[in-house]
Order: sequence, then C-alpha cells, then structure tokens
Amino acid sequence: MKTPVPDYLNHVLSQCNLNDSGALADYIPELANADPNKLALALSTVDGTVYTTGDDDVEFTIQSMSKPFAYALAIQHLGLEKVLQKVGVEPSGEAFNQISLDAKTKLPKNPMINSGAITTHSLIPHDDQISRAEHLRRFLSELAGRELSFDEQVYASELKTAFRNLSIGYMLRTVGVLDEDPVDVVNGYIRQCAIKVTVKDLANITSVLANGGIQAKTGKQLLDRGIVRQVLSVMMTCGMYDAAGDWLSTVGIPAKSGVAGGIIGVLPGQVGIAVFSPKLDEHGNSARGIQIFERLSNDMGLHLMEGTPSAQTIVQRRYSPQQDDSIVIYELVGALQFAEAEMLLRIVQEEPNGNNTIIFDLNNLSLMNDVGRRMLIEGIDRLIEDGHEVVVVDPDYLIEQELTDRGQVMTIYRHLDDFLSKLSGLTKSE
Amino acid sequence: MKTPVPDYLNHVLSQCNLNDSGALADYIPELANADPNKLALALSTVDGTVYTTGDDDVEFTIQSMSKPFAYALAIQHLGLEKVLQKVGVEPSGEAFNQISLDAKTKLPKNPMINSGAITTHSLIPHDDQISRAEHLRRFLSELAGRELSFDEQVYASELKTAFRNLSIGYMLRTVGVLDEDPVDVVNGYIRQCAIKVTVKDLANITSVLANGGIQAKTGKQLLDRGIVRQVLSVMMTCGMYDAAGDWLSTVGIPAKSGVAGGIIGVLPGQVGIAVFSPKLDEHGNSARGIQIFERLSNDMGLHLMEGTPSAQTIVQRRYSPQQDDSIVIYELVGALQFAEAEMLLRIVQEEPNGNNTIIFDLNNLSLMNDVGRRMLIEGIDRLIEDGHEVVVVDPDYLIEQELTDRGQVMTIYRHLDDFLSKLSGLTKSE
Amino acid sequence: MKTPVPDYLNHVLSQCNLNDSGALADYIPELANADPNKLALALSTVDGTVYTTGDDDVEFTIQSMSKPFAYALAIQHLGLEKVLQKVGVEPSGEAFNQISLDAKTKLPKNPMINSGAITTHSLIPHDDQISRAEHLRRFLSELAGRELSFDEQVYASELKTAFRNLSIGYMLRTVGVLDEDPVDVVNGYIRQCAIKVTVKDLANITSVLANGGIQAKTGKQLLDRGIVRQVLSVMMTCGMYDAAGDWLSTVGIPAKSGVAGGIIGVLPGQVGIAVFSPKLDEHGNSARGIQIFERLSNDMGLHLMEGTPSAQTIVQRRYSPQQDDSIVIYELVGALQFAEAEMLLRIVQEEPNGNNTIIFDLNNLSLMNDVGRRMLIEGIDRLIEDGHEVVVVDPDYLIEQELTDRGQVMTIYRHLDDFLSKLSGLTKSE
Amino acid sequence: MKTPVPDYLNHVLSQCNLNDSGALADYIPELANADPNKLALALSTVDGTVYTTGDDDVEFTIQSMSKPFAYALAIQHLGLEKVLQKVGVEPSGEAFNQISLDAKTKLPKNPMINSGAITTHSLIPHDDQISRAEHLRRFLSELAGRELSFDEQVYASELKTAFRNLSIGYMLRTVGVLDEDPVDVVNGYIRQCAIKVTVKDLANITSVLANGGIQAKTGKQLLDRGIVRQVLSVMMTCGMYDAAGDWLSTVGIPAKSGVAGGIIGVLPGQVGIAVFSPKLDEHGNSARGIQIFERLSNDMGLHLMEGTPSAQTIVQRRYSPQQDDSIVIYELVGALQFAEAEMLLRIVQEEPNGNNTIIFDLNNLSLMNDVGRRMLIEGIDRLIEDGHEVVVVDPDYLIEQELTDRGQVMTIYRHLDDFLSKLSGLTKSE
Repeated sequence: MKTPVPDYLNHVLSQCNLNDSGALADYIPELANADPNKLALALSTVDGTVYTTGDDDVEFTIQSMSKPFAYALAIQHLGLEKVLQKVGVEPSGEAFNQISLDAKTKLPKNPMINSGAITTHSLIPHDDQISRAEHLRRFLSELAGRELSFDEQVYASELKTAFRNLSIGYMLRTVGVLDEDPVDVVNGYIRQCAIKVTVKDLANITSVLANGGIQAKTGKQLLDRGIVRQVLSVMMTCGMYDAAGDWLSTVGIPAKSGVAGGIIGVLPGQVGIAVFSPKLDEHGNSARGIQIFERLSNDMGLHLMEGTPSAQTIVQRRYSPQQDDSIVIYELVGALQFAEAEMLLRIVQEEPNGNNTIIFDLNNLSLMNDVGRRMLIEGIDRLIEDGHEVVVVDPDYLIEQELTDRGQVMTIYRHLDDFLSKLSGLTKSE
Repeated sequence: MKTPVPDYLNHVLSQCNLNDSGALADYIPELANADPNKLALALSTVDGTVYTTGDDDVEFTIQSMSKPFAYALAIQHLGLEKVLQKVGVEPSGEAFNQISLDAKTKLPKNPMINSGAITTHSLIPHDDQISRAEHLRRFLSELAGRELSFDEQVYASELKTAFRNLSIGYMLRTVGVLDEDPVDVVNGYIRQCAIKVTVKDLANITSVLANGGIQAKTGKQLLDRGIVRQVLSVMMTCGMYDAAGDWLSTVGIPAKSGVAGGIIGVLPGQVGIAVFSPKLDEHGNSARGIQIFERLSNDMGLHLMEGTPSAQTIVQRRYSPQQDDSIVIYELVGALQFAEAEMLLRIVQEEPNGNNTIIFDLNNLSLMNDVGRRMLIEGIDRLIEDGHEVVVVDPDYLIEQELTDRGQVMTIYRHLDDFLSKLSGLTKSE
Repeated sequence: MKTPVPDYLNHVLSQCNLNDSGALADYIPELANADPNKLALALSTVDGTVYTTGDDDVEFTIQSMSKPFAYALAIQHLGLEKVLQKVGVEPSGEAFNQISLDAKTKLPKNPMINSGAITTHSLIPHDDQISRAEHLRRFLSELAGRELSFDEQVYASELKTAFRNLSIGYMLRTVGVLDEDPVDVVNGYIRQCAIKVTVKDLANITSVLANGGIQAKTGKQLLDRGIVRQVLSVMMTCGMYDAAGDWLSTVGIPAKSGVAGGIIGVLPGQVGIAVFSPKLDEHGNSARGIQIFERLSNDMGLHLMEGTPSAQTIVQRRYSPQQDDSIVIYELVGALQFAEAEMLLRIVQEEPNGNNTIIFDLNNLSLMNDVGRRMLIEGIDRLIEDGHEVVVVDPDYLIEQELTDRGQVMTIYRHLDDFLSKLSGLTKSE
Repeated sequence: MKTPVPDYLNHVLSQCNLNDSGALADYIPELANADPNKLALALSTVDGTVYTTGDDDVEFTIQSMSKPFAYALAIQHLGLEKVLQKVGVEPSGEAFNQISLDAKTKLPKNPMINSGAITTHSLIPHDDQISRAEHLRRFLSELAGRELSFDEQVYASELKTAFRNLSIGYMLRTVGVLDEDPVDVVNGYIRQCAIKVTVKDLANITSVLANGGIQAKTGKQLLDRGIVRQVLSVMMTCGMYDAAGDWLSTVGIPAKSGVAGGIIGVLPGQVGIAVFSPKLDEHGNSARGIQIFERLSNDMGLHLMEGTPSAQTIVQRRYSPQQDDSIVIYELVGALQFAEAEMLLRIVQEEPNGNNTIIFDLNNLSLMNDVGRRMLIEGIDRLIEDGHEVVVVDPDYLIEQELTDRGQVMTIYRHLDDFLSKLSGLTKSE
C-alpha cells in the first residue's frame, strides 16, 4: 500500500492550479521574470517526514518568510526582553501605514512588517567575518538540512529599487530604533530576503517549529521551546496581511508569506506546510498559496482551535505483573504535559493507601515537559507519604533526580525488566 | 493519595491574593457594592472534571463573558454567514473608539466589543414567550449543568446608567445594523449580562468549549465543532482588551473577561479556566484574574502554541494473534485526526502486499474526526486493492459505512474477541 | 440708472440653475418632500442693504446653519472660556466618525459637527418658561429683523428618525459632556434646526456678522466683536465638510450649510451671502449653493485672503484753514484701526516741532476701534509734548476722554466750525 | 513727534523677553549653538515701511519659513493645477505621522509639512547652472530687497542628520511623488532651509504678501494676486502646528515658523510680521515668538476675522463745480473692489435720468481690482443709456479702455483740471 497523503496533496494542487488570479510581483524587476505557472506544495510532520508535490525542486527567494527566523535568531541571541525593547508584537493596522510606528511606543509594531523586520535584522549577531544575512543563511541551512545560498541577481535587483525600505530605515534611524547607518542595515535585510529555498527546504524548516524547536532527524533542539512559542504567536497575529481575525477563524494556521510566492504555515505539534506559486493577490500573498491553505485547513481539520484531546490516553495500561496485586504498573503513553499529568494523578489517587509498589513505566512517553515532570514527582511524593514504594522506569532519562522535592527516594530503573527480573529474583530467593 | 492539582490551584490563588491593585467597577452602581476581596479559581478538563478553590460558590454577574456564548447561539441559530453579515471578526483598535464601526464595512468590528455584542444579542432567537436573554440563560444553564438565574438588582442598576450602550444602540440603528428599537435590544443585552454564575459554572461551561462542543458528562454535542472553533478564534484575537498580540504571546489562552471580575479561558482539547476577583485593572479586566492566567500559562505550560505532539502515539501496538503471521492487528490509541492518520498510513504502508488480514482495532480511540475517518477508509481501500482482507473493530460506531468509497467491503466487528473467536472457530473447524 | 448688482446676481443664479446634480436629503422624510427646483440668492452689505433674487420668499428650515448662532448665543451667555471647556474648535476629520470625540480632550471637536452642536445647544440659556430653542428663535428673529417661526412638521418628522443624534447624545452623556437627559437635549436641538427662514432673513442675519456684530439698521451691537470673530473663525475651519484647506483656498468665505439646502457665508467687513437650493451633493451641501459660492468668490474677488489695503486712505486731506500755517487740520476718513493709525502717526511725525495747532477731524471716520483710539491718543500726547496744541473734532463721541494718558489736555469740539468760528472770533477780537 | 509704533513694539518685546520657556532645537547640532537670548521683532506695512526692534540685524536660517515661498515659486513656475497634483492643501493631523501621506490621494497633505515641502522643492525650476535652492535664494533676495546668502555651516550640519527627511524622500520616491534620486532633492531642500535672513528681511518679504504680491517700493508685481491668496490660505490652515482652529480663533494671522526660531505672519492688506527667538516650545515653534503673535493680535486687533469695513468710504465727495448743476463729480477714494463698487453704484443710482455730465474722479483711488473695474464700467454703460455723458478722470491708467462693453464712449482725462479748463474754455468761448 502507498499512503494516500501524496495523492491528496497532488489533488489539492491540481485543483488550485486552475486558479489563474493574481499577478507577479512587479516592484522588484527580477521577480517579475519568474515563471508564473510554477506550483509546489510540501507538508512535513513533527517527526521530520516531508511530502512534496509539484515543482518541489524549484528554488525561489525566501523574502518575507525569512522574518520569523530572523526574529527567532535575534531572540536566541539577545533574549526576548531586549528584542521587545525594539519591536512590538501587535498587528499593524493598514498596510499603507507600514512606514509608521506604534503611536505610543514609537517602535515598529511587529517583526513581520518591514519596519519591524529591518529592525529585527539589525538584532541578528554579526561580526567582521560573518554578516547578519550570512548568519541567518547558516541558521536556515541547519534548519533545512542542506546548504542554502543567496540569489545574487534578486539581491542586486532589489537593492536598486529599495526606496520603501530605505525610507523605513531612515525613519527607524530618526527615532533611534536603529543607531547605525540605515543603508547598511537595509542592504543586509535585502540580502536576508534573497536566500534561495525550495518548498522542501521550507517544509523541513517549519517541521522544526511544529516540533517545538527540535529537529526530528537529528534530535537537536535548534530553538528553545519558548522562542518557538513566541515566533508562532507573532506569525498568528501578524503574519498574513492585517486581517488576523479572519485568518485565524477561517484558516487557523500561523503563517507567513513571501513576495516571491511562497507561504509557510505551522500547526504546533502537528504539521509544517510550504507552498509556492508566484502570482500574488492584492495583499501581496500568493493567490494559489492562500487557496491551498484554505483547502488544507478545511479538508484536513488543520486548525489551531481544533485542539487534540490527547488527555484521555495517558495511561495505556494499569496492570499487576505475575498476579501480584501488591505491585501496580502504570504504563504511560504519549505526551505528559499539564492536562495528561492532571489525568494521571486523578487516576492514581484512586490507589488505596498501603504499602504497595507503584511503578510508572515511562517507556512509551513521547514527551514530558517540565510541568508534567513536576506534577508526576509531586504525585510520587504523596504516594510515598501514603506508604507506597514508588519505582520509575525511565529509559530516556526524563526524570533527572532520584529524590522527590521532599527528599524521599524514588527508585529509578532504565528497563521494566530490570525491575521485574530483580523482583522475580527476590521471589525466587524467597 | 490526593491529587496535588487542588493544592496547586490553591497555591496560585494565595499568591495572587497578595495583589491589591485595581479598583471595583464604578460605572454600574450595583457592581461597586461587590466585596473586593472575593477570589476564586476553577479549572475543568475536557472530560468534565472540575477543580475549584477560593470563593467558588459566590455568584456574580457574567457580564461580557456572555458575549462568546451569545455569539455561539446566534451562529447556531442563523449560520455563520448571516452572522458575519452583521458583525466582523477583527480586533477593534483603541478602546475609546468602541462606539465607532469598521470604516470599510460599517459593521461592528467583532462580537466582543459592545457594538458587536449588542448586534449579536439581536441575532439570538426569540419569540413572544421567550426573550433573547432568556434563551441565552437557558443555553448557559444547559452548558453549566444547573439552572442559572438573573441578578435583577444588577439588571435594574445597569439599565439606569446604560448611556454608552444606548449610544451604541442608536448608532447601530442609524447605520442599519439594527432595524428595530435599539432601546429594546440594549435592555435585552443588559439582561443577558446579568445572568448569575459561579466560577464552577463557568468551568463547566468552558469545559464544553475545550471539548469541541461536547459536554463530557452527558455526551451531548451542545455546539458544533465549527462554531466552537469560530468562538475560540474570536476570543483569541478580540477577547482581552486590544493587545491581542501581547496576550497571545505571553498567555496564549483564548479568553474573555467580564466587568464584574470574572475571566474565562479555554485551551482547546485541554482545559477550561474560570477566575473571579472583582477589582479591575485599567483595561477593565480583573487585576488578580489576569495574574492568575499568567501564572497558569507560565507554570503549567498552558499555551496555544505549545502544541501536543500526540501523533507519535497513534499505533499503540501492532501484533499478530496466536502466532498467526497472516493476521496483523493495529491497536490504535488517542485521537485520529489528520496528523495521526498520516502517521498511521505511513506505518501501514510498510505492510507487504499479499493476502493477509489487517485488523484496525479502534477500541482505544478517544476521538475520530471526519478527516481521520476518510483517511483511514482511503487506506483500507488501498489495502484491499493490494489483496488484503481488512477488518475494523469498532465498538463505538465511529465508522458508519461498510463499504469503502470504491465499494469494497470492510468487515466490521464490535469486539476484537468476536473476530478472534470466529477465527479460532474457523481454525478449529479446519 | 439702476445698479447692476441685482442683474449680476440674477445672472449667477440663472447659470447655476442649469446644474441638475445632487439629490434631496432623504434621511428626514419631510425634507424629501421639498421642491427640488427652488433656487434663491441673497447678498447683504455691512450697512444693511440686501439684494435678493430667485425664490427669495420661500421659507425652509435653517438646520445646521443654526449652529454658528447657537454657538454665539452660548458664548454670549457663558463666556468663551466655559464654552471651550465643552466644545473644541478644530476640524473633525472624517465625516463618518462624527460620533466620536477628540481623542485627547474627550470633547466634541467643534460646534459645527453634530456632537458639538448638540453640546452647544445645551449651553444656550433656558428656564421654565423659555426653552433653549425658543431662546435661539428669538435671537435669530432679532438678527433677521422679523419674527421667525418653527416648522412643526419638519420638527415632528426629524424627531422620529433622530437615531444618529440620539446616539451622539447618549455618547455625550456617557463621557459627561452632557449631564442631563440626552433625549431632552437632542429634541431641543432638533427644534432649533426647525426654525424657518428665507434667504432674505439669512442675508439680514449674516449682515450682522459681516458688520462686526452691529445691526446696521438699528445700530445695535447684537453680538460682541470678539464673539463674531470666534464664530467666523470656527465657520472658516469647520463649517463646510472637512476639506477646510480646499474651501479656504478656493472659496475663502467662512460658511455653513444646512441639510434643507441653505448655505450662508460671511466675509467680515464686506458681505453676507445666503443661498437656497434643496438638492445636496455627496457631502450634504446644496449642490447649486456650492457652485454659487464658487462663482461669487471667483467673479467678485470675495476671498478672505484678498485683503483690502485700506490703509492708504486714512488722511483724506491735510490743510490749513484761512491761510493760517500755524493751524494744520488732518481730515481723517474710513476706519481707524491699527494699520490706519500706524499710517496716520507716520504722516504726522513729519510735522515739525513747534507750537502749532494740530486738528484731527474725525467727522468722516466710519469706525475707530480700541487700538486706533489708543494709538491716536498716544500720538496726541507726543504732539503736546512737542509743544503743539491739539484739537479733536469728534461729532460721534469716538474719543471718550479729555485728557491724554499722561494727563495732558486735548480740546474736543463736536464740529470743526465750532473751532473755526471760535478761531475767527479770536482772530476778529484781536 | 516720533510715531509710538517702535516704542510699542519695543514694549511688547521687553515683556516677552521675560518668558524663559522653551529650549533650543537640538536635532541639528549647529542650531543648538545659537544664542538663546536673541530676540527681535519687525513689522511691515503694505506700503513697504518696516519697523524693527531688538536683535534686528542678527542673521539666522530661514528653515521652514522658506516653505511658503518655495510653494509660491513652484506655482509661479508650473501653475496651481500641476502643483495640486503633487501636494494637497489640507491640515495634516498628528505631527508624528508627518512621514505618512494622505490616505486617499497618496500625496503629501500640504506644502507646510516636510513631505509636502520636499515635494514642493522638487517643483522649483532648475537647470544645470542654477539649482532649485539657488533659484529660491534669488527669489527671496528680490522679495527682501537685498542679496541673501546660505549658511554653509548649518547646511553641512543638517546634511549629516537628515534621517527623517531622507526617510520622507525615499517614501515619496516609493509612491512616485518624486521620480528622481530623493537624496538630491532632500539635499536641495536642506540647502533651501539654510538661507540666512534677519527679521528685517522677513518683514520686507512678508510685506509683499500683505500687499497682494506687489513690492511697494519698486511697484513690481513679484507674485500674482492668486498665488498670494493660495499661499496665505495654506499658511492659515497648515502653517502653525496642527491646531489650525485654535490658531485661527486666537491669533487669526496666517503664519509659518522655522526651527531656528523665526516666525512670519501676514495679514493681507494690513501688515507683515517677523519675530526671532531661538528657544522652541514643544511644537517646535519659537516660544517667545508665539507669545509676541498673541500679544500683537490681541492688543492691535490684528485678526483675519476683524474685517475692515472700508466700504463706507468710497465716495469722498460728490459736488458740482462752478455752481453748474448739470455736472456732477464723484471723487472716489480708497480701494475699488466689489463691496465699494456695490456702494458706489447704489449711490449713483440716485442720480436722476437726464443729460447731465457725470464725472468719476479716480485720482485718489489706491487700488482698483478687476471686479471693481468691471462694475464701474457697467454702471457707466447704464448711465450713458440713461442719457448722461460720462467722463473718467484716470491719471493712473486704471481703465484701459475707451469704450464700454456695449461700445459706448467714455471720455477719459488724465487730470480733472484738463476737463474743467476745457469746460471753462467752452464756457468762456460762449
């Protein structure tokens, strides 16, 4: 059997292919030369699987889709607080006013409009050897899993007509948001926008965001969970033109488009999406790209507000081995976060007082966040106080302590069999 | 053992109790008489469990927290399209301009500001016997699981000082958004705001939103999934004053506050939250309430952008019974939505062609949405084409068809044992 | 000979009669019944002469043209300072936002938009016997020189559809600009708008404004000069829709229109203008009325920025009577304000020191303002210090003192002949 | 005697000298070095007399006071229509938004804000030899009556910190209002602002505006009357920060300030005013300068809405020479514009029909505009039709035709005596 997912994506693509609306970006001469018929779609899962269809090997410039990643890099470099002192997180109102700043703070309203993106670019680390744009290229290359390069022709072309961005740059210099030569920063920002990607690259990149900052294939935490949360939040409210409410209610996927025709979207914990089609609608977003997102959201139920009631599944099995009622094994499954921990502890509290042995088998846990860990340990503490012995089977070192917060001893095993064999050894020795 | 969740909530409450900022709402005389020290918190899970702490039996008026539910009722009554012809979904900008309308559409910008809420009230069904406010009271009573009542004193008090709402009502009449006497509509809206609730009621109510519209205790689908999605989307972008971006990035919980001191929040698929403390900050939100939400979001990792990577867990077990390799059982667990179905089909495609029997055991599925069902059936279709026989164990009637979309036969059993016993019978009879 | 002015006005009217654009006001049912073909023009001079042409005896409701006069009455009643605490003087921006208030002051932006006009109405004096609208009717009747009356049908008709004004009234009540029942104030304001006038009435009324508050025929100072200045200033910046800059540069006449089709204009010191034609353009101003104003401004050079270089004419004659060089008579003519006084003193300073007699003959002065008086007296003081005797011929009691500010004696005569006969008497007696 | 005007101006200056508020402009380094104590005032009349007091020989840069003159020069060069296609005439709203454009037209809102002024600079004529700034310097030199020069240090200093203007320039280039290199235009604009003037220069310059474009000393029409009207209109609504309504009602003098501490004002037909004091208030206007304007307006009755009821004085004398009742001489005085012509014709229409000789003696007329001329000739036409002979005494060639519009003969003399001597010759010859 072949999974029908590629066929489905193919089907979506062929339907949207009929959409002939929109026009090529004309304000950058080089972009106007793009082939308007190119069309590609890629979808990635949190475990790094990537499906692609259409012109999935065509490279195009990342343009404004670089903004979320420059923002991520700036936060990683300076910390969120310092970045917030330079760029806000609120929707910006009318597109035409992009040049203006927030009336109160005198800062760019968010990092997704050009004033905020130019400011964000200036916050990327750099030194004499490595420019900011180069820093971002390296970062995106790591996220994409291959070495990306710049489109020097698009870069040169944009430099010549960067009037709006220069206007913004000088305005930022006027109000002190920038304190260096704005021409340099704007040129760097334009170079950042000229990084070449395919939809497959973008799907790989967004897969990391969907997966809480972890690159599934390498297991590396490329971005802190908190940064991912911040970036996705800003994409949600400020990513797609200014109708944030409309985009959230109808599509419900944090997204960002680029003027070369790309759009990326991320549904945290679920999928990353990338589309490419050069013709733009009146908001400057890929016309077919928007349509594809709408189709995916509606057809696939991919929507931030759908929720995933995963809580029901935390306890896969509760059983006692070898007919020994004094031992109770809780085999946990899935992600242990607040909602699951709440459920687990609610179930465990049915456990009668006594001196039983309670075993938490973490072997099948896919994720345990800090809250889940703390709640589990608190529960263990209480069980020990009730007179139980508590054993944790923790092959992946999710629990990094051997004592509870009140100093009581949890016995940690790496494998359930280690405990069971010891147990049966004991039994045998009896 | 006792679950530590109540202790944790209690701890949060006692810490926020120290916060003495804010002031009682003064524009409604009756509200100024509230006890400023009252403080309560309730948290509900999607399975209907409710934790409460503090003054959890104190009744207060629902006020603006009625807005999302009036909106839900209006959509349920008229359909989303007709409601969107009267009220938008975009953030409204400055609070002081609440009286004004969207410059382009000449409609209220969203149902969470007063102009939109008064309009929304006018869209609730009503007849000679049952007013709109009464309709909403009945609806909220059903959601809360007990009979709610009106606070006649607060109602009478607000009627006397409803200048702003009357101004808004007449403005809506001027532009034709209302076409009846605005005084009647405004009075009805004020009555809607005077429904009395406790944090426990609110937790029960939000539990339904968190659970995709299903009331866990009764199993009733009180609201369509699409309506819940719409309501939560609007709460996210328009619910808490106008800093939607700030609220999303720092708290990340769709929420709505009321001027009597309540705030409700919903994290879809995870929890409902309700707090109550009458002293308000400068935005008119409960000062301690805001603090509690921030604590819960930060401490508990309750944030829309955290995601729950549930996909890893869809296949609980793949095994063959009775050493018979020609039979493969996929025991599914959790929710089968797009991401899980994708994973399932990806796993199943490893199944070699042949004439094996593939069994999908749905017994442990907590939820299967339409996409999950369609993808599963498409996969089954393809397995049958590959020569397999496919059996579905479906105790909860999740699959409502016996033929695939291409007309091939799936064998449906209610219990795995039914199949296995038949199988062993067959074996025996051989 | 007959003056050609009426023929000219007639000519203007007949040309604009061809203009068929615009539509009757439709939001007030009664106004929609007006005869769209009515057309009238009246022009008044500062000395009270009124030219009229067209349907000059047709009565129509004054509507918004009542606003400047309600404003004048409020200032006369409370003083400018108190009125400015309730209503500003700045242009209001977009028409659609009329309901909103100034973001900083939370006051209506000016008395010409409805929020400001309703507020202004509330500042008119009233008591149990005489309502505010009745007070204004009496005031306008005095300005018009005949007893005006209310159009009860229009009043009743507007009351039924006053949604926008009620919205504004309640908003004003909300923010505390009004502190009484807004329904009463709005009804009073609507009654104020229902005063019936003809273009001849309006020309008489504006003649008073053009003449610095003095009714030429009666010589009464019906409004203080400072109030007139304030009213005309506000008409200039806020009177005609929101394009104040366009109106000032192209027409240059402070003006106010009414929705029944009237427009009034005032060029201070020169003319009052009133037109009537019921069909309105998209801004709600009489379409033909606007055209007539443009014609009058362009053809007649009637523009605030034209200026009148009257200064050249202050000294009509300098002569010595009876061949007596020791006596110099300055025969003044026109208005003695700053510019003329400056010129006078500059001329007089050529007078050689000595013990001549200098006579200022004020017989032909049409106006002497406070500044002119003070400068003249200062000049006299200096002439006396130089050794001259100074005589003032002052038939109209323009100089109300006999001593200069430094206590020196000016000799005052009512008629030049009184001095000359005395002089010749002296001469004779010598 | 010495005219007290200088003493008065001196008195105003010494009182405002006590005002110590405000601060030096700090955004241009060179301006921050100015002597904050400098204070000067100059006042000019329409006949070219200039009074000065204080530091009247201190040169400072003209800065934004150059804007009205650049606007005048652009209109003179291209015509008003073409200029209006590039720059509007409406007040601009909040200062901070100066960078933005009119939302509808996408043009700078007016020529007094920087975006409009930079655009206006680009409309000044220029060629390879003479830059735009040099063109303006020459024009201002002619208006001032002496050769002005550039402050090269201020120019160089501003060039280094012209971030805001460069931002504006690039924005104008973006939207196509500029179509050349914005850096060149901005540099030119900065050079325009660096022209050095004294208050005496400015008083000479504004005297021309006050005098309808005519330089009194040379008699040259340096600017068309229509251009002066346009420039003063724009100064009135857009010249002094954004409170146009407040400035008009309290000061009532079209004005423009510069950041070096100068303010100019013009009351058409009356005076030009120039002040200089470097410390600025929060709006960027000279703090003492504002105070001086308020004093002059209030003390001197210098206010646009004061009006000058010059109409009363048009007929200085009506008499018959030599006891001959068949000859009637109308000796006219002052300015013959619409209001005066109306009065004249109203007086003349009392003349009984018959074959008298009517003489209009224009010898004392200070001004006759086109309307006045046309109305006079129309009246003459009618008098001739009534059977009169009409003679015009026109020493200044105000009437340039010998036939009326209907082809009837007016007899023109240059001196009344020519007619009278001829008459007496005739008489004698009898």
